[in-house]
Amino acid sequence: MSNGTLILMRHGESEWNASNQFTGWVDVALTDKGKAEAERGGELLVEHDLLPDVVYTSLLRRAITTAHIALDRADRLWIPVIRDWRLNERHYGALQGLNKAETKEKYGDEQFMLWRRSYDTPPPAIEPDAEYSQVGDARYADLDEVPLTECLKDVVERFIPYYLETIVADVRAGKTVLLAAHGNSLRALVKHLDGISDEDIAGLNIPTGNPLRYDLDDDLKPLNPGGTYLDPEAAAAGAAAVAAQGQK
Amino acid sequence: MSNGTLILMRHGESEWNASNQFTGWVDVALTDKGKAEAERGGELLVEHDLLPDVVYTSLLRRAITTAHIALDRADRLWIPVIRDWRLNERHYGALQGLNKAETKEKYGDEQFMLWRRSYDTPPPAIEPDAEYSQVGDARYADLDEVPLTECLKDVVERFIPYYLETIVADVRAGKTVLLAAHGNSLRALVKHLDGISDEDIAGLNIPTGNPLRYDLDDDLKPLNPGGTYLDPEAAAAGAAAVAAQGQK
Repeated sequence: MSNGTLILMRHGESEWNASNQFTGWVDVALTDKGKAEAERGGELLVEHDLLPDVVYTSLLRRAITTAHIALDRADRLWIPVIRDWRLNERHYGALQGLNKAETKEKYGDEQFMLWRRSYDTPPPAIEPDAEYSQVGDARYADLDEVPLTECLKDVVERFIPYYLETIVADVRAGKTVLLAAHGNSLRALVKHLDGISDEDIAGLNIPTGNPLRYDLDDDLKPLNPGGTYLDPEAAAAGAAAVAAQGQK
Repeated sequence: MSNGTLILMRHGESEWNASNQFTGWVDVALTDKGKAEAERGGELLVEHDLLPDVVYTSLLRRAITTAHIALDRADRLWIPVIRDWRLNERHYGALQGLNKAETKEKYGDEQFMLWRRSYDTPPPAIEPDAEYSQVGDARYADLDEVPLTECLKDVVERFIPYYLETIVADVRAGKTVLLAAHGNSLRALVKHLDGISDEDIAGLNIPTGNPLRYDLDDDLKPLNPGGTYLDPEAAAAGAAAVAAQGQK
């Protein structure tokens, strides 16, 4: 049996994408634009005859709802669903809830980019009892410790072992595996798949609502390094928009 | 640890409920009214502080979407999800797709009620290659044989063993278990829970979008026989409306 296929889908616009706030683990909803992006994602799956056999999502409603809308569109709502916190967005620490443009203005370009794109420097930790902390949230009751902040390295260290121990078994079984997740959990996976260095990953942006396909060989290396966006034109435009965040 | 709680939720109005057609395993969508019913179901869970720890659904989008909407409303989208065909609606055989009122007129009241409410007489089998047959549908690829028709007894025989082997473990673990399903799969379960006879089950109707709660003792018998509707007034009105189907 040949190996399967990974489809990485970043959720579309959320309420806090729209208001330009750091989101992280705060569980905000999709906007109507975000729902339309998920619908378009599902349409692309159909157009490319790339129908998922199983879907993994984070524990956050913007990814869960993206999967629901895309799979509804692709007539695959019935496939098995696994939700796991390891697919969550990077925890943005004390920045969660803050406006990105205001934060950039207050702390300067250099500090802002360090928080956003440094591989191993996390933002300041959030206070455990702060409004946008997830300490005490029932959905994380099984965790030994709920994060108070994360850098991308932390996301790699929580997500890649889960990918290797759990998701890979579905790939090896020849399945088409949809991962409905977030900018930074998907960047962590792409870093692993394409062997991107700690430095170079800073320059990688993943656009929203545009499925990114990886076909894997027997060693789980991509047959198509860098992956293949189902809508290449939208991918180029979307990556530029992500890079521009933080500008007013 | 005390035993958990079952919450039975029948999906709200579907497109074919609205057009008065036999649906069975045909995968039609919810109407806007059906979505509002699901939303109200989620609201009732919140009002009664009855937050599910795990959700089981059928493989049909009207139940899956009901669960999604209700859990979104209750801020519990992140709980584990299990989808299984054994929760599906009763397969309505050759009646799938037919208008209920026209069928009643054509075959007469007695035959109509026999098909709808007989415990062990299924409707005529659908042709395997008919438009509304599910033979060859990818979602049922794991079944030895896709049904061509079912009576309520068939539903009991596929669903109750699954309930006892799988769902009950979650109940015994003290969880609040949401079952988002269909009129007849839920009737099969209520028959089992309340020990209703093959004859008396004909008179039992389950309203839509109104969560029905069962608290179970150590022998998995209901502490509240007959269950408790979270909205008792709507339940009475809804059951009357279901009983009236088939009238023009």
